[in-house]
Amino acid sequence: MSAAGDACVIGIDFGTLSGRAVVVRVRDGAEIGTAVHEYRHGVMDATLAATGEPLPPDWALQDPEDYRDVLREAVPAAVAAAGVDPSLIVGIGTDFTACTVMPVLADGTALCQIPELAGRPHAYPKLWKHHAAQPQADRINALAHERHEPWIGRYGGKISAEWQFAKALQLLEEDPEVYRQTSRWIEAADWIIWQLTGVETRNACTAGYKGIRQDGHYPTREFLGQLHPGFATFAADKLEHPVLPLGRKAGSLTEQAAVWTGLPEGIAVAVGNVDAHVTAPAAAAIAPGQMVAIMGTSTCHVMNGTRLAEVPGMCGVVDGGIVAGMWGYEAGQSGVGDLFAWCAEYVAGAEYRAEAERRGVSVQEVLDAEAARQPAGAHGLIALDWLNGNRSVLVDHHLSGLIVGLTLATRAPDIYRALIESTAFGTRVIIDTFNASGVPVTELVIAGGLTKSRFVLQLYADVTRRPLSVIASEQGPALGSAIHAAVAAGCYPDVPAAAVAMGGKHQAVYLPDPVSADVYDRLYAEYLLLHDYFGRGGNEVMHRLRGVRDRVVAAASGGNA
Amino acid sequence: MSAAGDACVIGIDFGTLSGRAVVVRVRDGAEIGTAVHEYRHGVMDATLAATGEPLPPDWALQDPEDYRDVLREAVPAAVAAAGVDPSLIVGIGTDFTACTVMPVLADGTALCQIPELAGRPHAYPKLWKHHAAQPQADRINALAHERHEPWIGRYGGKISAEWQFAKALQLLEEDPEVYRQTSRWIEAADWIIWQLTGVETRNACTAGYKGIRQDGHYPTREFLGQLHPGFATFAADKLEHPVLPLGRKAGSLTEQAAVWTGLPEGIAVAVGNVDAHVTAPAAAAIAPGQMVAIMGTSTCHVMNGTRLAEVPGMCGVVDGGIVAGMWGYEAGQSGVGDLFAWCAEYVAGAEYRAEAERRGVSVQEVLDAEAARQPAGAHGLIALDWLNGNRSVLVDHHLSGLIVGLTLATRAPDIYRALIESTAFGTRVIIDTFNASGVPVTELVIAGGLTKSRFVLQLYADVTRRPLSVIASEQGPALGSAIHAAVAAGCYPDVPAAAVAMGGKHQAVYLPDPVSADVYDRLYAEYLLLHDYFGRGGNEVMHRLRGVRDRVVAAASGGNA
Repeated sequence: MSAAGDACVIGIDFGTLSGRAVVVRVRDGAEIGTAVHEYRHGVMDATLAATGEPLPPDWALQDPEDYRDVLREAVPAAVAAAGVDPSLIVGIGTDFTACTVMPVLADGTALCQIPELAGRPHAYPKLWKHHAAQPQADRINALAHERHEPWIGRYGGKISAEWQFAKALQLLEEDPEVYRQTSRWIEAADWIIWQLTGVETRNACTAGYKGIRQDGHYPTREFLGQLHPGFATFAADKLEHPVLPLGRKAGSLTEQAAVWTGLPEGIAVAVGNVDAHVTAPAAAAIAPGQMVAIMGTSTCHVMNGTRLAEVPGMCGVVDGGIVAGMWGYEAGQSGVGDLFAWCAEYVAGAEYRAEAERRGVSVQEVLDAEAARQPAGAHGLIALDWLNGNRSVLVDHHLSGLIVGLTLATRAPDIYRALIESTAFGTRVIIDTFNASGVPVTELVIAGGLTKSRFVLQLYADVTRRPLSVIASEQGPALGSAIHAAVAAGCYPDVPAAAVAMGGKHQAVYLPDPVSADVYDRLYAEYLLLHDYFGRGGNEVMHRLRGVRDRVVAAASGGNA
Repeated sequence: MSAAGDACVIGIDFGTLSGRAVVVRVRDGAEIGTAVHEYRHGVMDATLAATGEPLPPDWALQDPEDYRDVLREAVPAAVAAAGVDPSLIVGIGTDFTACTVMPVLADGTALCQIPELAGRPHAYPKLWKHHAAQPQADRINALAHERHEPWIGRYGGKISAEWQFAKALQLLEEDPEVYRQTSRWIEAADWIIWQLTGVETRNACTAGYKGIRQDGHYPTREFLGQLHPGFATFAADKLEHPVLPLGRKAGSLTEQAAVWTGLPEGIAVAVGNVDAHVTAPAAAAIAPGQMVAIMGTSTCHVMNGTRLAEVPGMCGVVDGGIVAGMWGYEAGQSGVGDLFAWCAEYVAGAEYRAEAERRGVSVQEVLDAEAARQPAGAHGLIALDWLNGNRSVLVDHHLSGLIVGLTLATRAPDIYRALIESTAFGTRVIIDTFNASGVPVTELVIAGGLTKSRFVLQLYADVTRRPLSVIASEQGPALGSAIHAAVAAGCYPDVPAAAVAMGGKHQAVYLPDPVSADVYDRLYAEYLLLHDYFGRGGNEVMHRLRGVRDRVVAAASGGNA
């Protein structure tokens, strides 16, 4: 009946504000116990907790002790909740936000945990959404195109300010002393494995998507040296390390980590992984053409392909980046659920708030219900979903949002619905771009927090004119990590086999409504027209407005106008 | 010292929801008593009060008995409040919303007051904002251009669906029986004079601006016949009548009207007038180049010129339309204060509402204060102020509003300020267009309800880079009507002389701040770019979205898709 009797594994999902541990039965993927630990320091984006010192704009740091607390708190709690004997646990897998990257000593000690560096912001892990390295990213991109670097096409023509090289270059340029003390520059995804196993490893996913490692190589010494003379040996000194395929065993649980977690010493620990990517096996959607959209505050799209293609505006394509042996494609939308929450919080007038209080639900639930009542096209609005910039396919974080069609009769549910539609149009642009680039999307599988909204998913089915499948698990990333744990522990030969046994999705849950889909075809044409006008150089007003804003705000705070 | 001792006149301002009577001293314009009467039927835009029958979209009717109630209620109350002996009142002047137009019998009886017609919507006065005659207006405009009618240029190239001919053609086509019984098609501005004097008159202002009467003629029989065979004799049969200059005595107060008002029988009644136009003399701003902007829910711009010019997108130019002997120019913005109120009511989230309750002020006052704190340009937004369409200079009621530059950090005060700025940019477009057309604007004088907002006026000064003067009276239209009453009563030789004695303004109250003005020069360039792209055919998305909306809503309510 089963590969390992009632053996269990643990998947740990390290998110932005908390970590979740889930105990999963190896033979069928049943989730039998779960626990969450909220990070004590959360996201440090205003002040550094250790000193109270204010942080500059666009910074976002974390405290690595919070990650270790997840091992100490959430893991034993999940085991207790599952009611299983810890001796039945045969492996651990993890996934992390990315690129969340940190400077450490040769033994893995986080620099910020050295007392004399605790007051230095640059000694801390930079969370994925630390955006202060944009100038460095701009220079990396410009130089890459100037030198016709072969790897830049693998990232849709543009690397992100969120990634390893931009953040490291910022460190070098702004705090050379901390840079000098940095022996290893490592993803938190790999650092947590180091904490569990006592040995440094690097995983294929973050090395490829966030570390610009392509065809076995990082960017060259010449390239890096042209960015900054002191940066020439960065990759060789601080990154280079064998890269392991996903699902491989990274090592065995150390005595120390066994004490933290209450798990048996010596059990298998899988190599690090990323929350979005690990969700594909959890949905059992790893065949070429199965695009998994993990929809939450933002959306990440992951899909395997059998061949290498350059898709304009994708986040990246990495050999074995999702599953070993296939090309893993990633794309993204930088604002999705965030936009809906923004509308509910800041654009909904008193009537909807009163209604929410009366019914004892959230404002967003009221907007959801009101918006769902409308036929497609009735509000007369089109929005551009760029309130948090555009990741795919324009790769421009300095774009902004737009709403057109406003009248005095426009109400919050209209704007709310238009924002949801705009993100669906954004998804359709991504699908169309993949299709046009020779990487056809054959199925759309939805995972993430927004799977709870029937209204949003029906709307996405209508806009994309596709049946939507939905991941079966409500804890996709943790289940995906557990799948990797099972493979690392030898319970399954590989991730695809484990995904079939342990992952799953509900097939074609939402079918497009032909009447709505026809309306949306028309509105999508309008979206595309605005998308290209504002996003591809027809009118650079979004950039100019941002420029005026930045100068005015700087002048008002005593800087230069 | 004075032309008529302590003689007084009464000005009556018939607004959209109420009528206001003001007792004014003839020698200096002192406003010594005022009273307001709210119309019992208000605006009938959902159902006809007499039957409860629902009205179609875009309809707006009134009950003329409400107008007579103003004579019976507000006038005596104002005299009582003034504490003057009614025998001191020497004249009455009035102003009205326009084009508010109605079908009457040859004796002035309103058709809706004939019992057998009380259930017919088309028998009622159509309020200025009745917009259901747009198809008729479209046909009038198309035919006028096809035939190269000389008058179309006098209206900026487009007549409005709000005006006499569009509304009359709608009447003919939708209720030919009521049309047949219509002896006279008359502005409420002139009908109320008929009620006061017992004789029909027509005034130069509405005949010119709303009745397409130019150089002494209405559109020709041939033109009207091409619109509809039954319409050929419309002007000759139902409009034609001597047109009197503004300030002329229309007649004497009848015995009946003396009973209604409590005023002496036989006193002078001035010819009818329009609320916006009558405000220019109230501000003593009738010299060529003095543009008076009456800023309220919408803005109306009136200005005299010495020569005839065709200003693109103006509402109209009429000989003697503001003051006899000069060319009166009119332009307008169809959404101004309405937009700010919309933002406060529907876009302001809980925090501003809570703040308003805490401080015991309106949400709009909170937004005003928050928005006023920002430096120009800090919110990073540009809006197009077309949430209620665009009157000048695009003359397109099917345009809609736009906001660009939205981010997740955008809050209600940002949107609120951007909307205010957008209306100021709209005003600057109008001024620039007049300047470019050989009708230079030399002074900007503000009147209307928005004179109360120091923040709005300072912003207008900054955006237009002009000192702003402000009307002295808080009851501009009623004072302007009183000025006309004084002239009709013979207390002054003409309106300019009476305006100097009775009207007034505060000179250059708001001076442009050079730092803000520099920022606004940059943002105005962005506004113009968007204005022309969305308003002059670069992208007809606003029209197409409206088309989709109308079809979808019609289909949902059982009509044709």
